Order: sequence, then structure tokens, then C-alpha cells
Amino acid sequence: MEPPASPRRVTIVDVARHAQVSTTAVSKVLRNAYGASPEMRAKVRRAIDELGYRPLAAARGMRGRTYTIGVMLPDIRNPFFPEILDGITGCLEDTDYQVLLGPGCNGEKEELRVTEAMIDRGMDGLVLVAPVSSRDRLDHVASVLPTVVVGRHGHSPVYDTVVADDVAGAALVVEHLAGLGHRRIAHVEHHETDPTRTAEMPNAQRADGYRRAMRSLGLDAEIDVVSTTYTQQGGYLGAKELLARALRPTAVFAGADIVAMGVLEAVGEAGLSVPGDLSVVGYDNTTFAALGPISLTSVDQAGREIGRNAARLLLERIADRGKPSVQVKLSPTLVERRTTARPGA
Amino acid sequence: MEPPASPRRVTIVDVARHAQVSTTAVSKVLRNAYGASPEMRAKVRRAIDELGYRPLAAARGMRGRTYTIGVMLPDIRNPFFPEILDGITGCLEDTDYQVLLGPGCNGEKEELRVTEAMIDRGMDGLVLVAPVSSRDRLDHVASVLPTVVVGRHGHSPVYDTVVADDVAGAALVVEHLAGLGHRRIAHVEHHETDPTRTAEMPNAQRADGYRRAMRSLGLDAEIDVVSTTYTQQGGYLGAKELLARALRPTAVFAGADIVAMGVLEAVGEAGLSVPGDLSVVGYDNTTFAALGPISLTSVDQAGREIGRNAARLLLERIADRGKPSVQVKLSPTLVERRTTARPGA
Repeated sequence: MEPPASPRRVTIVDVARHAQVSTTAVSKVLRNAYGASPEMRAKVRRAIDELGYRPLAAARGMRGRTYTIGVMLPDIRNPFFPEILDGITGCLEDTDYQVLLGPGCNGEKEELRVTEAMIDRGMDGLVLVAPVSSRDRLDHVASVLPTVVVGRHGHSPVYDTVVADDVAGAALVVEHLAGLGHRRIAHVEHHETDPTRTAEMPNAQRADGYRRAMRSLGLDAEIDVVSTTYTQQGGYLGAKELLARALRPTAVFAGADIVAMGVLEAVGEAGLSVPGDLSVVGYDNTTFAALGPISLTSVDQAGREIGRNAARLLLERIADRGKPSVQVKLSPTLVERRTTARPGA
Repeated sequence: MEPPASPRRVTIVDVARHAQVSTTAVSKVLRNAYGASPEMRAKVRRAIDELGYRPLAAARGMRGRTYTIGVMLPDIRNPFFPEILDGITGCLEDTDYQVLLGPGCNGEKEELRVTEAMIDRGMDGLVLVAPVSSRDRLDHVASVLPTVVVGRHGHSPVYDTVVADDVAGAALVVEHLAGLGHRRIAHVEHHETDPTRTAEMPNAQRADGYRRAMRSLGLDAEIDVVSTTYTQQGGYLGAKELLARALRPTAVFAGADIVAMGVLEAVGEAGLSVPGDLSVVGYDNTTFAALGPISLTSVDQAGREIGRNAARLLLERIADRGKPSVQVKLSPTLVERRTTARPGA
């Protein structure tokens, strides 16, 4: 059996005829070129919608663009990443750009596969969220395609970065807990294997910020870091380890809300209460943290704002490949909820 | 300023030289053709990894394939969809296929945009999860590209479907609650606007299953459906409406776990307790439902199994465009947790 034949493709000529304008006018609107009036745009857009016209991305690609932006996320289960994505798609809403996502790719090998796939498929630009690839690799990707790196610190001459100040965010958490009277404040971090990458990763910066804040409060002896992963399972395992300590911490700073989910799971399993037996703080201020029965104290790093900035910088870089690289750093805030209280409260 | 020049692309000749095999052998391995021994495959794969070789998707595309599968999800915030995605990527792991996701596209217009983008970008096949587009539109997409539709009931000669039995799932919920002694069991559904689409949508099937189960238990007079959306916000608004009733329901069947999240939020805000004042049941059995402080009774529709089936059917259809269409239907199970109990328990 042969596949059914595709219906005839609608062409620019059909659109022009339907809109009762010239093909040049249609072409101008399609290219977002100057010189097309708002009325003309509306007319052409309506004809495009009514006829279901679409320019072949491949054909457009030959003329230089496919109007596709690839976004690589490390983990689609982490409820923080949809916030960034909302910011990106919100910024692109009134453009012809379409976002395609690489699914969760935690690890250098998967990142290689996804970025190569996106390059091969002719994307116009990439947003890489918290990539773990080497700097050389990122520089290479950015030399091939306009690239914005989100959530990873460190400057490159070839790509732009958007980060939140993770050291400051961790300090907000430690100061909040110490202010409530906690001293034994532990931290569940995402394990970082590569020493050259360490300083650039948001997780490493949070762990560093935690250590620095503890020291500046004279709590050096209480520093207690468990290394797992930024997943629910990681939080669960980290908390199990902390709860088994001879002298249990009275507060846990989870490096991400999804980690805090796992911490809460382990605390519940152990028959302990939050915040009575243990105060818990997350990071990212996801919709999950705001949820009534959870009501998690968390750090808000303004994911949508991060996404908006990333999309804006990428459009600028697509328009001018050679522009100097830009670094945007946003300041986080602490959102206090019901998972933190005085020790033994 | 000109963009920096890309480094020279690694070719199949480099790979053959590095692996000390013929270019024909490399080509065989790349095409997954018969006649390449496991040793040969390993050798070539190693050389490919070491040199960072990648066949140009566009070039492969001209030979008929791009080894890209587009997956369209209605909402990346809903924690059920990563389960389906895990099933898809798990099934494709040992193949050359790369998955790219269309970000949340709730609505016909956005679905049109995403599916057209995927067709334009030369994907080899599509998995559409709970699409709301018209049957004509789905048939059209499937006539252009091999397509599997997930979670939407109804048969088509041109695409395969994978669904869970939503009517049976809803009956499990109602029977569980009635078995505990509940009579005033309300349902928060996802509002369906299009009457011709209604019968095919999973949300409509769940609402239908709820009504049927209530009737078969003699609870016709207690049927109470609030129409919102399958989002946390939808659950929140639906529960607010139900809690304002003169005679409050004693149990709420939320059509999805993400809806139950919103219900729990509203219940907490109203100062009521679960399950003491209200039993709550979700649907999808996400990792969120299993979480200690939540411990949500939910229907497990085996998302990974759904994803695995979808990927398998798609690979079969890519290999044979003309094969008869297949419908897979999986049976859901109920997972009882702590959000359900006797009324007033």
C-alpha cells in the first residue's frame, strides 16, 4: 500500500490572490521586512491563516533561517524549567520563531547528542539551560550557532549568559535559618564531578554560597553537605543520610524545590514533622512550593525573567552574530512559607 | 564582524580510517543494515564517538530520513507527560532517533503551529499526546507523516492510537469512594468545547465514566460536575466552587493529579482537612501523588507503557507507511493512599 498523496501545497501566489495584494507584499510580511503597513500585515496574516499556508522551513533555511530555536533542558521533571520556558515562549510570541525542546539530557554525552541534533536540523539558535558540557564544547556550539547559556556562570566571548546570583540566594537561605535560631543547617547539593566545571555550575555556586554564609556566621563547625542529585530521588536519599546522623540537623537547605520534594518524602517516612522536627528550604519557588499542603519556603530566582532575557539576547545575537557577548545576572529573593520555624517549634 | 569559521566537519572517510575499516562498513553501521558484526559496530561506534562524527541530518533527510521524532505535549507542567516521554525515549534509546518536543500547546491554533513546524523541519514521524485538533486535521497530519496519537480515543485508518481505558479508570474511582461510604462524590473535569471531538478526548471519557458509574450505583441525583481545565489553577477554581455549595461534596474526583494539586490548595486555604472533611482522588499516579505529605489516591494509567507502545508503533509505521492502523488500549489500576477515607473519618 502506498501512503496517501499529500494535498497540493498552498503557495505564496495563492496567499497573494486570496489577500488581494502582490506576492512582493506577502513576501515582505513573511520576512518581517520594513515597509509593510499594519493593515497589509493583518490582511496577509488572515489569508495565511485561512489558507493554512506555511513557507517550507527547509526552503526558508536555504535563504538563511528556519525560524526554529532549540531549547535544551536538563530535566523536564524539574518544575523550575517550565518557568524559564514560559519566559522564552512569551518573548517569542509575536515572532515567527518556533521553540523545539531537547528532552531531559542530564550528562555530557546526551548533551552532545541533543546539541548536534539541533545543529543538524538547522535551528537558528540555541538556549542551553544549565549545560554540563565542557567550556570547549560550549564554545564550539556557540561558534556554529547563536547560543545563550542559562544558569551557568562564567563568561565566554562567543555566547551570552543569563544567571541568577546563586551565591546570594544560598546566603538568603542560611541567614533566614540562622535568624530563626538554627545552627545545625545541612545542605543537599547536586554532586559535581568535573573540577574545571565546578565554579560555573549553579549547584556548585549554591553549595559555595552555603559554605561562605555558614562561615561568615561563625558556623564553620556545623557545615554539613550531602552530595546527591537535583532530583526528587536525590533529595530523598540525601535526607535519609542526614536523618541517620547521631546529631540530626535541625534544618535542611535543599538545592532545588524538586530536591525538597524528596526531603519531605523522607521526613514523612521517618515519622518526623516539618517544621517541628526539621525546617526545610527549597530553591526555585516553583508552583509546587506555593501549594497549600507543601507551603515550602524557597528562593525565587525569577525563572520567567531569566527566560525572557535569554530569548531577547538570542534574537539579538541571531540578528548580529558578531556582537560582543552579554552577561545578565538577576538577584534572587526569599519567599518565607510554612516549612521553616524556630528549632523545635 | 564575521562569525568565526566552523572547524572542518569530520567525514565518513575519517571514521573509516580511524576505525581501520572500510567506508562501506561504516555506512552499514550508520544505516543499521544487516551484515555488520557486533565487533564491527563497536569499533565504528567508538571511532564515531572519538572523532565526534555526525552524519548531517539534512543529508540523511535527502536520502529519506532525518532520524528525528517530534513529540507534541499539551502541557509540560503536567507531571504525567514526562512518564509518557520516558517510555518513548526508553524505546528509542538503542536507535539513532532523536526526540524533539513541541512545548506545551493547549489549543488548536498552537497545535497547528507546532505540527506544521515539525512537518516543515523534516521529522520522520510524530507522537501527538492528547491533541485537541479536529479529526480532519489529524488525518491530514498523518497523511503527511507517520503519526501515533496518544490518549485520544477513536479510530483512524491513517494513524495508530495508544490510550488507557478512561471510562474504566473513572469507574475505579467512583467505586472506591462509594465503597468507603461516600455518596456526594463530585468531579472536576476539563471543559470540552467541541461536541464532535468530545467523545474522543480522555477528559470527556473520564467525565462520562464518572457519570455512568454514579448511575450504576444509584447515585444519579448526586452527580455534580464542575468544568474547568486540567491544570493546578483549574483544580483550585473547581474546588472553590464545590466548597461553596450549600451541601458540600464529601469526596472530589479530580480528572488529573495536577488538578488534585489545585484542589488540595483550595481545601487547605479553606481550613479544611483531607481526608477528614473531604476525600480527594487524582488521576495519572505521578511522582507527585506518591510524595509523602501529599500521598494522593490516584489512578495509574501506566504512562511509560503508553509511551513505549507509541514509540514502537511509530517505528513500525515509519518502516511501513501503508500498514493497517493499530489501536492499543491499556487498563488502568487504582492506587489507594491517604487522601481517601470514610466520610467524616
